[in-house]
Amino acid sequence: MKDIVVFGTGPIAELAAFYLTEDAGRRVAAFTVDSDFATGPSFGGLPLVAFEDLEARFPPEGHDLFVALAYTQLNRLRRAKVDAGRARGYGIAHYVSSRATRFSTFEAAENQFILEDNTIQPFARIGRNVTLWSGNHIGHHSTIAEDAFIASHVVVSGGVSIGARSFVGVNVTIRDHVTIGADCVIGAGALVLRDIPDGSVLAPGGTEVSKVPSHRLKRI
Amino acid sequence: MKDIVVFGTGPIAELAAFYLTEDAGRRVAAFTVDSDFATGPSFGGLPLVAFEDLEARFPPEGHDLFVALAYTQLNRLRRAKVDAGRARGYGIAHYVSSRATRFSTFEAAENQFILEDNTIQPFARIGRNVTLWSGNHIGHHSTIAEDAFIASHVVVSGGVSIGARSFVGVNVTIRDHVTIGADCVIGAGALVLRDIPDGSVLAPGGTEVSKVPSHRLKRI
Amino acid sequence: MKDIVVFGTGPIAELAAFYLTEDAGRRVAAFTVDSDFATGPSFGGLPLVAFEDLEARFPPEGHDLFVALAYTQLNRLRRAKVDAGRARGYGIAHYVSSRATRFSTFEAAENQFILEDNTIQPFARIGRNVTLWSGNHIGHHSTIAEDAFIASHVVVSGGVSIGARSFVGVNVTIRDHVTIGADCVIGAGALVLRDIPDGSVLAPGGTEVSKVPSHRLKRI
Repeated sequence: MKDIVVFGTGPIAELAAFYLTEDAGRRVAAFTVDSDFATGPSFGGLPLVAFEDLEARFPPEGHDLFVALAYTQLNRLRRAKVDAGRARGYGIAHYVSSRATRFSTFEAAENQFILEDNTIQPFARIGRNVTLWSGNHIGHHSTIAEDAFIASHVVVSGGVSIGARSFVGVNVTIRDHVTIGADCVIGAGALVLRDIPDGSVLAPGGTEVSKVPSHRLKRI
Repeated sequence: MKDIVVFGTGPIAELAAFYLTEDAGRRVAAFTVDSDFATGPSFGGLPLVAFEDLEARFPPEGHDLFVALAYTQLNRLRRAKVDAGRARGYGIAHYVSSRATRFSTFEAAENQFILEDNTIQPFARIGRNVTLWSGNHIGHHSTIAEDAFIASHVVVSGGVSIGARSFVGVNVTIRDHVTIGADCVIGAGALVLRDIPDGSVLAPGGTEVSKVPSHRLKRI
Repeated sequence: MKDIVVFGTGPIAELAAFYLTEDAGRRVAAFTVDSDFATGPSFGGLPLVAFEDLEARFPPEGHDLFVALAYTQLNRLRRAKVDAGRARGYGIAHYVSSRATRFSTFEAAENQFILEDNTIQPFARIGRNVTLWSGNHIGHHSTIAEDAFIASHVVVSGGVSIGARSFVGVNVTIRDHVTIGADCVIGAGALVLRDIPDGSVLAPGGTEVSKVPSHRLKRI
């Protein structure tokens, strides 16, 4: 296994380096970001190098790249860096937690970031550069297209299709056989019972705060 | 262990054969359906035989039956086939995922279909022919009566009772000590805070699509 | 390891003794409650002794204490008993399920009760005397302050803060970077998208029962 260079210096990059090291047994050699964002010579105790100059110190012969970005520009930024790294000869790593449930039908792909306690049922397909944060249910015969970002505790029932680059927030519920288009933003807690066209936004309102404070509750 | 004949030719039958083989180490010998639905001589690479003639090729001396149907007729069809198989001398198999969390108080029963990442807390009781799809929480001292179908990510809190044949959709939330009657249909995403009589239907509406498309969102 | 005395005689005490014995391999020697609540000489097949007289039969030299109470008085009662036990020289035990996902950044603390199938991501911090019932997601860089009670299937996203003694009901969804004050009561199924001040109550209404009974549904 080659060492890994992690693209990013945010919390997701910090997490990715942690998971790759502690759970996957990979060695992380450095972090990299575009030179405009390289604020110093190191991050998280490792060298931080400008992405433009990466080959000089961490060439593709000895290093894979993992792009640890969130859903900025609806996941286009993460994808662009994956494409750039590949074009420059880097192998693109992926991370699938040892604590994610999956079966022999599962196929890993480049830059997937699949965290602990996800359930990927048999016959589900997950595209490249997809993030499955934690504890999601990806039902049988469902498809998550490339570059999507699925937060946590999302229920993707059976036979669902989620389009490329879509963002699905925490605890969203998607009924079986629903098709969600590309470039959608499904906010936390949404309930999706019907097909949703490309570029849709769903944004449930939060629960109101009651006028009664907790010290006046009688049953607790 | 006897070989298993799986009743059904839908996605659930395909899944059941997969789980029984890959996870439980059982050998699936054939599929069976009523003769009116037997569309050919094989399904999924195995013989497909009419249920009426099952004994001729796959007799009960060497084969158990597992009925892999969904909740058609509010779970009555699945139950009828279990009863018919038992009356004809077949042992009725069950499947409890090796990745379901349960404790020494759990007792398996005929035709249970309990998938990965379910949590069955101590002192919970699950009836025969119950389906627990994936990732449900079945709280301590709760009872799921026979023939019920619980989808995925359902929270059955502590001390809850769910009546026979009831269907509970994905991501339903049931508060502690609530009693749900028999033959209820609780739609995806419902929040159940009070007792519900026999035959009740709860059907939350889905989240509306926003008028603003995703490419006009500023924060993403 | 010392034997454990469990404070309480309710369902949570019964569960705690079960988990400590079956999962953690600890030996539970007795139950204890305040003398006004000691209804007999035994509970669950073990001696039941008045807390006021505990040292006489189960002294701190040979016994740790675990306080198995729910969220009475917004978790103040449980905390008071922990403090009383510690002041009288007892070590305070904790229980973290062998089936809870956590990483090397996790630190256990006194009287934590962390059940199966919780996810505690890297860099999350959990205070002492916190209960995490089952199947919660505690996101990276989040903090659960001491004495809080988190029910089941709660999503605490990344960078969230939950204040001391707060109660969070089943299947509550908390968006990333939200701060919830101390002494809050967040009811089952609530969706929390904004910061919530100390002492707040959120109480979503349950789903209404439909006028159409299940036997008149055509699609099931």
